Order: sequence, then structure tokens, then C-alpha cells
Amino acid sequence: MHPHTGPNATIPQIDKAEVTNLLLGKWQKERLESREVAKNPRFQGIPGLSMDEHRARVLEQLHGLVEEQAIQRAFPSDLGGSDNQGGNLAAFQELVLADPSLQIKAGVQWGLFGSAILHLGTRPHHEKWLPDVINLKIPGAFAMTEIGHGSDVASIGTTATYDPETEEFVIHTPFAGAWKEFLGNAALHGEAAVVFAQLITQGVNHGVHALFVPIRTPDGEMLPGVQSMDDGVKGGLNGIDNGRLAFDHVRVPRENLLNKYGDVAPDGTYTSPIESPGRRFFTMLGTLVQGRVSLDGSAVRAMQAGLTIAVKYASERRQFPGASGAETVLLDYGQYQRRIIPRIAETYAMGFASERLLTVFDEVFSGTNDSDSHREDLETLAAALKPLSTWGALDTLQEVREACGGSGFMAKNRIVGLRSDLDVYATFEGDNHILLQLVGKRLLTDYAKQFKDGDRAALVKAAASQLGDRVSRFGLRQVGQSIADLGQVGRSVESLRATESQHALLADRVQTMVADVAMAMRDATKDIHGDKRAKAIASERAFNAQQAKLIEAARAHGELLQWEAFTDALGRVYDPETRQVLTWLRDLFGFTLIERHAAWYLIEGRLSGARIEAVTAYIDRLIGRLRVQALDLVDAFGLTPELLRAEIATGIEAERQAEAADYVATQKAAGTWPVHEKELRARERATRSAS
Amino acid sequence: MHPHTGPNATIPQIDKAEVTNLLLGKWQKERLESREVAKNPRFQGIPGLSMDEHRARVLEQLHGLVEEQAIQRAFPSDLGGSDNQGGNLAAFQELVLADPSLQIKAGVQWGLFGSAILHLGTRPHHEKWLPDVINLKIPGAFAMTEIGHGSDVASIGTTATYDPETEEFVIHTPFAGAWKEFLGNAALHGEAAVVFAQLITQGVNHGVHALFVPIRTPDGEMLPGVQSMDDGVKGGLNGIDNGRLAFDHVRVPRENLLNKYGDVAPDGTYTSPIESPGRRFFTMLGTLVQGRVSLDGSAVRAMQAGLTIAVKYASERRQFPGASGAETVLLDYGQYQRRIIPRIAETYAMGFASERLLTVFDEVFSGTNDSDSHREDLETLAAALKPLSTWGALDTLQEVREACGGSGFMAKNRIVGLRSDLDVYATFEGDNHILLQLVGKRLLTDYAKQFKDGDRAALVKAAASQLGDRVSRFGLRQVGQSIADLGQVGRSVESLRATESQHALLADRVQTMVADVAMAMRDATKDIHGDKRAKAIASERAFNAQQAKLIEAARAHGELLQWEAFTDALGRVYDPETRQVLTWLRDLFGFTLIERHAAWYLIEGRLSGARIEAVTAYIDRLIGRLRVQALDLVDAFGLTPELLRAEIATGIEAERQAEAADYVATQKAAGTWPVHEKELRARERATRSAS
Repeated sequence: MHPHTGPNATIPQIDKAEVTNLLLGKWQKERLESREVAKNPRFQGIPGLSMDEHRARVLEQLHGLVEEQAIQRAFPSDLGGSDNQGGNLAAFQELVLADPSLQIKAGVQWGLFGSAILHLGTRPHHEKWLPDVINLKIPGAFAMTEIGHGSDVASIGTTATYDPETEEFVIHTPFAGAWKEFLGNAALHGEAAVVFAQLITQGVNHGVHALFVPIRTPDGEMLPGVQSMDDGVKGGLNGIDNGRLAFDHVRVPRENLLNKYGDVAPDGTYTSPIESPGRRFFTMLGTLVQGRVSLDGSAVRAMQAGLTIAVKYASERRQFPGASGAETVLLDYGQYQRRIIPRIAETYAMGFASERLLTVFDEVFSGTNDSDSHREDLETLAAALKPLSTWGALDTLQEVREACGGSGFMAKNRIVGLRSDLDVYATFEGDNHILLQLVGKRLLTDYAKQFKDGDRAALVKAAASQLGDRVSRFGLRQVGQSIADLGQVGRSVESLRATESQHALLADRVQTMVADVAMAMRDATKDIHGDKRAKAIASERAFNAQQAKLIEAARAHGELLQWEAFTDALGRVYDPETRQVLTWLRDLFGFTLIERHAAWYLIEGRLSGARIEAVTAYIDRLIGRLRVQALDLVDAFGLTPELLRAEIATGIEAERQAEAADYVATQKAAGTWPVHEKELRARERATRSAS
Repeated sequence: MHPHTGPNATIPQIDKAEVTNLLLGKWQKERLESREVAKNPRFQGIPGLSMDEHRARVLEQLHGLVEEQAIQRAFPSDLGGSDNQGGNLAAFQELVLADPSLQIKAGVQWGLFGSAILHLGTRPHHEKWLPDVINLKIPGAFAMTEIGHGSDVASIGTTATYDPETEEFVIHTPFAGAWKEFLGNAALHGEAAVVFAQLITQGVNHGVHALFVPIRTPDGEMLPGVQSMDDGVKGGLNGIDNGRLAFDHVRVPRENLLNKYGDVAPDGTYTSPIESPGRRFFTMLGTLVQGRVSLDGSAVRAMQAGLTIAVKYASERRQFPGASGAETVLLDYGQYQRRIIPRIAETYAMGFASERLLTVFDEVFSGTNDSDSHREDLETLAAALKPLSTWGALDTLQEVREACGGSGFMAKNRIVGLRSDLDVYATFEGDNHILLQLVGKRLLTDYAKQFKDGDRAALVKAAASQLGDRVSRFGLRQVGQSIADLGQVGRSVESLRATESQHALLADRVQTMVADVAMAMRDATKDIHGDKRAKAIASERAFNAQQAKLIEAARAHGELLQWEAFTDALGRVYDPETRQVLTWLRDLFGFTLIERHAAWYLIEGRLSGARIEAVTAYIDRLIGRLRVQALDLVDAFGLTPELLRAEIATGIEAERQAEAADYVATQKAAGTWPVHEKELRARERATRSAS
């Protein structure tokens, strides 16, 4: 089909099936099973339902998921599950294509409430509750967040005070700020909750622990001492009954403490396998990382859906007559290409990064690689990727919403619904800024380990001597080339195109930014004298002054991880034309990052102004090449019409244009097509000037 | 209250009342009247209504607006209005605070449907229809956009063919793509429509004209030949009954042609006061600029509301204990300040720019300054500002949504509702990218006028010789200083701080970018030979390659206009402390723009890397200074609790914290506060090391 003459005449074509396979990844089977669920109208959202109708529908859908055996994979095989951690989250991520409300309510039930019992409880808890959690006989809430404390879980106010007289815990909400808040299943459907509370026994507060607390009868009556309030309408996810819970000296048996990481004996003696209260707290919280992993992949899937809808529409939609006489297809406009094509590249990068994150998650949670350091890597990786992908989804969905014009605003074209539902992904399961700060702190720690007395010169030297070496798999990367080398690399765009050069530029930025923050903090605090508290305050002030920069460094680290995941994926592509196109796409991703951070590369002397202009010119060339690939690249996401459910992505626009063209042609043939006044005047002018 | 010792000990305070007055501007009276309407619960939105309930409520509210005499100001005094163009839009802009659905449905009825009759019709039309349009006896639709053509109005497919036999126009929808689409009042309530159609008489198409067409009986029955379809649920504005309309050879009297710019005699002869069909079309469309002016001011008001809610909450909300022992207030976090405070500055700039736009609009439409060039300036100004403010509103509302965490996602805190309703402001009344392209083309035209054979060197020379000179009031600005001067100016941050330096840097960027686009287009096309069409295609291709850059230049131009409006406003501030604080805020706005475009300033050699770093450091200092002003600066927006209607902005968070603190203090006093395990272990460690 493609003429093979001339140097630029060959246009490579991707093998869509190969790319789809690559994107579906290791848990392809579970993903495809879950997409079948999402294709079933029973599980799909209906725009415009009232909140009450939507909530009732989603509850009913959850029972349907149980029937379809769509949600039990993570649980122990002997209790109704299949011990399949990675496959479980993979399948869960696809549910966003059915209805994000369905997905997140399922996430509350099985991903949070059920997982907390699984990961924080012990075998008796599993046997007692998990079968009924799996089959939804016990709908439950995950009662961690409070009105007064969201991100800072350690400071929650709810107490669980042990009473050795009755061998019970007394769950209590001491003030309004300690009401549990934003909990799915709390307003209506939850019959129990895993309640996080300060565990107090023998006059000592042992920090936050989780307990299983019944809250409501199957008939919907609140149990004595338990109060609930409905959060009402939200910006999205209105199929979920979020609400508040408060406890007035509610008693539960001692055995209801989920006691994997801390237990209380009948006499009130506290014991824990983890001595340090700080480490114990973070270990308990760390078991809940799967929420972040889930959201990351779901965000990518929503981006893919949005881009598929927009690109299908934009390759048919025409607006404004061009010089050739025909109206111009949206995807042929320079500005449109600049808006959309780099986002396809970003979505690919995020997709590959998401698959890598899921793999690490599976290694840790299946136990095949459950070392402390691998667990820490998992948490850092999740904290780096979830913010970028959830923000990426919001930005991309907004861009495609606008790119589809008024049609993008219609619920029947799907984009606005996805965007409003995914809005909260940016702040739940960890506020994105706080997650990035967590990553930043990890980068600082890695940095400090390497260069205890380091300065930038030492860093450069060390980096140069450790070509390609990596400090830890997902922590701080070493610069692949020294800064001196970069000057060489940067001499032409040709050389920038090399994979190693892109890596060096991206990795160097992370390394240098982290080093700069570390240096600035050291400089700001080294001469502080005074008591411990004065020092702590000075150090806090220094950190605060660097906070925005550290978060930016963490973002750069996440971008590097995405770029690396994309690059690794290229190694798994066998068809040469496919590899060519995906390499252009990876280059586009890499160069877009470099262009976005051009000011940094210029200020730090890494790239000259001329080189940055060359980067921009090369991006333009790549976009030009990828324009003809755009439709194939979104088709390869494998999202069928039943999954997209967007009228404008069905070919309806092309049909309408064909009908209009037919009409005009028929009129012209019949001689009934009126001449336009403009044409008439042009003819008159021509006659006048000829005479 | 402020200690006046030491050089930095004086903290200036703004006179909030003066700032509020300044922001309310020339039409303060109308704005305050309209805010009284918005404070009335009758006119307020209720989150969670079904689409049907919301539509019914908004229709009822529109009748209420008639009773309150809230919407008639723009119409002729003798027909029930008050000939007050500026005041009308000022009042309209405030209605966004009641419910954007109410606002936009009012905009459809009186701003589009009514205005089209006013501006495109003549006195008999005004007398016949306007009184019933004003009092809502004739609810109407504005039927311009079609499924197939939105931005490209000239290409619409609906026809109005004159039949001299009956002296009627035949309105017809020839194919599906020509259905009128997205029209408020079309699905349910409209009884008439102003229909835009290709006017055909005596076999000639005279281009797009508007006709008054009855569509529905007062009982809701469609009139013969008219079909309607409901657009259903949208991403927002669900109180408006948007829908489609189609016409099957529907006949209206010849007199229903709104004939100010084109008329058809009984025998079918076409006449127009504007000979050129192109200029005629743009003149007709130009009368509808008020939609853009309205949205611009409404977007600013929504930004103000979002920022007020967020800053009030952030000055109470605390999260994570700091080194001082107390939990840290959100507004004290470095990253939080970086996210929010520059947006306050931007909102001020956009507010002042919006007031300027409204002033120009009033001058043109009241007739006090209705020259062709002033009208063209108005259109360019509106096209430059509306995109920036509507995007600014979406970005800011999203940022404050996230900054308020989960609370930001609750409908009762208002932000998500505003954001989803305002989403479509980015693409209606002119797609933002297309509007900026329009501005870009105007800038290119201005450029071409100045430098017919110009190149960059000539431009620089010319600019240097025209210090402070402006080509046209709202078109392309001259560089205030030559590029050579900028090197001098840029020697220290002190000098950058000068108003003239900021202006020079911002204006130079616009000028240079436009010149670069012009040069690139000239270079790409100058050697093209061939026929006219081949040249046109080459020129189109060259333009397309520059499209993204031209749109970026237009954006820079809009930013410059905002900065200038802010600077002009400083001249109207009398209290010196207020002027000091607002000058810092203006500087923050200017420097944030320079930092955002740092790569450009570096590549073009305007500022060195060291200077850019100094800009960033100065921004950090300004943000530090303005942190203590933040609450006053948002209070000065004058948005009272009845206008904000956000629970988290009522002081409820501070109350909850006080209650929690009381609880802890009481427990500690009673000796019932449990010691934390961490403290216990620290004590043990201390004892061990002491022994």
C-alpha cells in the first residue's frame, strides 16, 4: 500500500495486535475478562441518574460483580479467592471503563475494607469475615480519614481504649474533628467498618491500629452508639454513598483488633512484632499501597479512552475550508497536533510505567520478592507514578474535552463523566503533592547515603565514575554520564536522539535538583546554634523553603521512571516497523519532557538555546511523522466501541459529512445549487478588469 | 498593631474597602444590585437536583429575574430597558454567583436571542418582539451553531430561500449535519428562535443571515415542520435545556428577516448597506461580541469565589505537627503558597483587564466611541482576554479543589459545581484556541502594516526609536525599550522590578514572537512559484506550521494586556499601603509570567540564567510577603458568605480545632490523657543513657 520510492517515502505501519498485547501486559487474561464485564450494560454507568438511583444501581452492580467472580482474585484460595495479587489489580483497573463509581465502590469493599482485614488481620479474622466480605454479605467501610485529619493519619482523634474488665475495646469519637469522613459505604450500605483509632491500653497510646466494628443492621438501622451522616452530592462518583461515622463509646470484643502488627492480651498487655512505633505505623499503612497502584492504572485507562474518542473524532471532523477547496480535518491542524499527539506518547509511557509498578506490587504481595527494600521501592514507585498519572488523566481528559468542542461537553460522548469522576483520584489514596514530597524525601535520603559530606563537585565526580550504575532500583538514579559528557552529547540533535543521551539528560536533572535541595538545606542550617527545638524549627523552615523544588524534583524522578519504562518496553517489540514508530513515540515523550523543562537545562548550562530550538524543531518533525500513526496508536489501546460508548467515536461524523457532500453534489448536478454572492462579485470583477 | 522597629518590621495593610471599590469598577451599582439577586435563595442552585428538576427551577428563576428587573438594562428605554450596555453585562457577570445555569439560560434569552433581535433587527422587529422577549413571554433560542459547523459559522448548511410568490422565506435543514445544535431553550422551553441560515434569493446565496422563526406553541407543541431533539445530560449547566432543531421547509413572512445588514424586497431583490459579503458577515457576527465580554467577567468572578473559599479554609486548616509543636496551617507551607498566591495575583490582573474590556464594550455599544477601529479593538481585546480568563478559571478552580482535599470535592463546598459548569466556557462563544488565532492574525496584520519589507533588524531599530509608542490601543504594542536596552535593564533584579522593565520584557516577547512567525511564513513562501491555488496551499502549509507559535504569541499578548490593566489600576489606588501591597501583587504577576516563559527569555538572549534565578528568588520573597496579605486580598473581592455558600469557608474548621484542643487540654488537666508509646520509649532511652 505504501510506495517505496525515495528516502522518505516508506511509512512504517505498526502491528496493532502486537502493541495491544504489549500494553495488556502480564495480566492480559484478567484484563480481558474484566473488559468483558465492563462491556456488559448491566455494569455500565447511565448519565443523569439521580444520586439515589445511581447509588442503588451501583450496589446492585456490586452484587453482580460477585456473581461474575470479578473481584475475589486477591483473597486466599481456600476462602474463595485465588491468591492472585497482580491479576486482581489489573482486573480492577479495567473496571473504570464500566463506571468509575462501580469501580471505586468495589475498591472500598474489596480493596480497602477487605484488604485491611486481609493484611492487618490474622487467620481467625480471615476465616470469620473474608468469605462474607467477598460475597458482599458484609458491605463495609474503610474508616481511616477523619474530618480533622486526612493526609496526617498518625494524628487522628478516634480512640480504641481497652477495658480489661470486659475484654472489650471502647471505640470513641471525642470531638467533631474526629468524625470519620468521606467513607464509601458509610452513608447507607455499610454494615461494618474497619476503624482506625489510637489504641490505648494500660494508660498508654500505642498509636493507630485498625479494628473491625459493626455499624449497621442489614435493615439499615444504625447500631447503638454509631452515628452516620451523608456527604451528599459530590463532584463525581455519585454512585457511592460517602459519609461520616461517629462512635459514642461503642464496644467491640478484644478479638476485633486486626492484630497482625500489634495485639492486646486479655489483661491489657500490648505486644507487637515491630518494636518501633514509627516503623510499625508505616508498615501498617504500607500494606494499603494497592489503592495507589490501582488508581495509577485506572487513570491510564481513562486517558486512553479519552484520547481514542478524540482522535477518532478528529480524524473525521472537518472545520474551515482549506486552500485545497476541501474542509480541513482537525487532526491536520498544527495546533491540534501539538495538543494531542504528545499526549498519546505520554499515555504510552504512563501505561508501561503502570505495568512495571503492578509487577513490583505483585512481587511484593505474592511474596516472590518481599524484602524490606523491595517493599520500600514499591511504595516510592507508587508514590511517584500515581500523582503523575492521575493528574495526567485530568489534564488529558480536559484537553480532549475541549478538542471535541461542544460535543466533548455532552455526557453521551463520555469524556466529561470520566473527568469529573476521576477528579478526586488526585487527592485520595494520598494527596498527590504529599506523595511527591514522600518521593522527594526518599531521594534526599538516598542522596545523603551516597554523599555524606558531599557537595556538587563530589557528586559530579562520583556520577562520572559510576556510568550506568543505579543506586537502587526505583530510588535515586545515577547520572548515566557526567555533566562534562553532556556538553559533548548535546552537540547535535542527532546525538540527543540516542537513548543514552535522553536518559542522561533526564537523570541528570533529577540528580542535580535533589543535590541542590540537599545543599540548600545544609547551607541554611549548618550555622544554626541553639537548643534542639530551635534547630528543628530552623530545619523545618529550610525544608519549607525548598518544598516546591523538592516536589518538582520528585516529579522529574517520576517522569524519568516513565521514560525508562517506555524504553524498556521497546526491547519487547519484535516487529521492526512497530519498533520504529514506538521509538519515535518514546523520543517524542523524552523530547517533550526536555522542552517542558527547557529553562532548567538552559540555566544549568546543560543545553544551549540553539540546542533547545533544535529539540523543538525535532518535536515538530516527530509530530508530523506520528500524525499518520495517530489512529493506529489509539486503536492499539484495544478499547472497543462497547468500552468507549461515545457517539462521536462511532463514525457518525463521517456519515454526516458524506450525506452533506451527496446533497451538494446532487444539487449541483441538478443545477439548483445557488451561486454565492462572493463568487458572483469575483466574476464581475474579472469581467470588469478584462473589459 | 504592627511594631514599627527595624527595617522590615512594618507590614503594610490594605484598605479592603478601597480595593473592593476598585474591583467593582465603573458599574459598581449594577454589580451590587445583581449580587443582591444572587444572595436570594430563590435564584441559587441546589446541588443534586435531577436534570428535569433543575431545568424547571431555572425556568422559574428566569421569570423571577424579570420580576426583579434584573435583565432588561441593555434594551431600549422605550421598550422596557434602560439603554445601559456596560451596566447590563456587569450585572449579568455577577449572576454566575447564583447558579451558572441560571446565568447562561438568561444569557441565551436576553444576551443572545434578545440581542440578536436588537442588533441584527430594525425598529419594527424591536417593537414587535422585544417587550415579550424582555418579559419572557417569548422564550427563545439562538440557532447559529450546527452539528457540522460550530466555529466556522460561514459554512452552515441551513437555508432560508425567498419565495416571491408568497413573500415568505422557506427555512430548511437539508441534511443531518445542518441540524442546529447545543441551543439553550431548544429542547423544551423555546417558542421562537433566531435562526442563522444561508439567505438565498433569485438563485444567489448572500451568505449567513438571521431570521425570527416561531418553533413551539406556549403549550410546548412543536410547530409544523419543526423538529427538536434533547441534548440530554451535559458535563455541567444541566439547568439549561440544550437541544437540536431542524426545519422542514418551514415558512416565515419576509418581514421576519432581521434586516439591519441585509434585506430582501418583496420581489426578491437583495440589498445591504455593506457591499462586501465578507465584511458584512463579520459585522453581523461582531454585534455578538457581548457573549465573550460576559464570559470573561464571569470567569473572573468564579476564580475569585474559588480562591476566597480556599484561602479562608487554608488559613484555618492545619495538617501535620510542625517543629514548634503545633500543627502547621496549610497557608504556611511553601508549596501551598506557590500554588495559591500567584493565582491571587493573576485573578487581580484578570479582574482589572475584564473591567477594561467592559469599558471598551460600553463605549462601542453605547455609541460614545463606535468607530470601526474601536470596534475592531474591542473584538481583538475580547478574543484575547476571554480565553485566558476562562482557562484561568478552570485551572484555578481545579487547583483550589485539590488544595481543599476531599472537602473540595464535596458539592456543599461549591468549587466542583463552579468548575463543571464553567468547563464549557472554554469552547462556547468562540473556541479559545480559535479566538487566540484570531488575535494572532490581527497581530500579524498590525505587524505587516508597520514593516512591509521588515526583518527583525528593522524591527529592533524601529522599536528602539519608538520608545513607549503604541501602534493601536489593543493591537500590537511597541517594545517600550530596545533589545539592547534590555541588557542594561536586566543587570539586577532591582532594575527588573521597575514597571518599565517588566513592560519591556513582556511587550518585547509579543513583538518578537509575532515578528518570528511573520518571518518564518515569509521565508517559507517567498520562493513558491506556480498558480494561485498552489501558492495558497503553500501559504496555508506555512501558516499551519506556525499555528501553535502564533497562538502562543496571542496568549503572550493577552498576558501583556492583563499586566497593563493591573498597572493602570495601581494609578487609581490612593492609600499608600494599599498601593504598596497591590504593587507587590502586580510584580508577582509580572515576574510569574517571566518565570513561566523563562526558556524564551533565555533562548532569545534577553535574560541570563543568573537573572532568571534572581527572578525566581524574588518571586519567593514576594510570596513570603504576600502570605500575610492573602486573607485580606481575597476578602477584598467582597464575596460575602451568602455569595460563597461553602461550608469550609464559614470558620467551621477553626471551631472544630478549638473543640479538639479544649478536649485535649481538659484530659491533660484531669490526668486522663494517655502517654504515647513513642514518648515512653524516648523516656526509657533517656533513662538508659543517663544510667
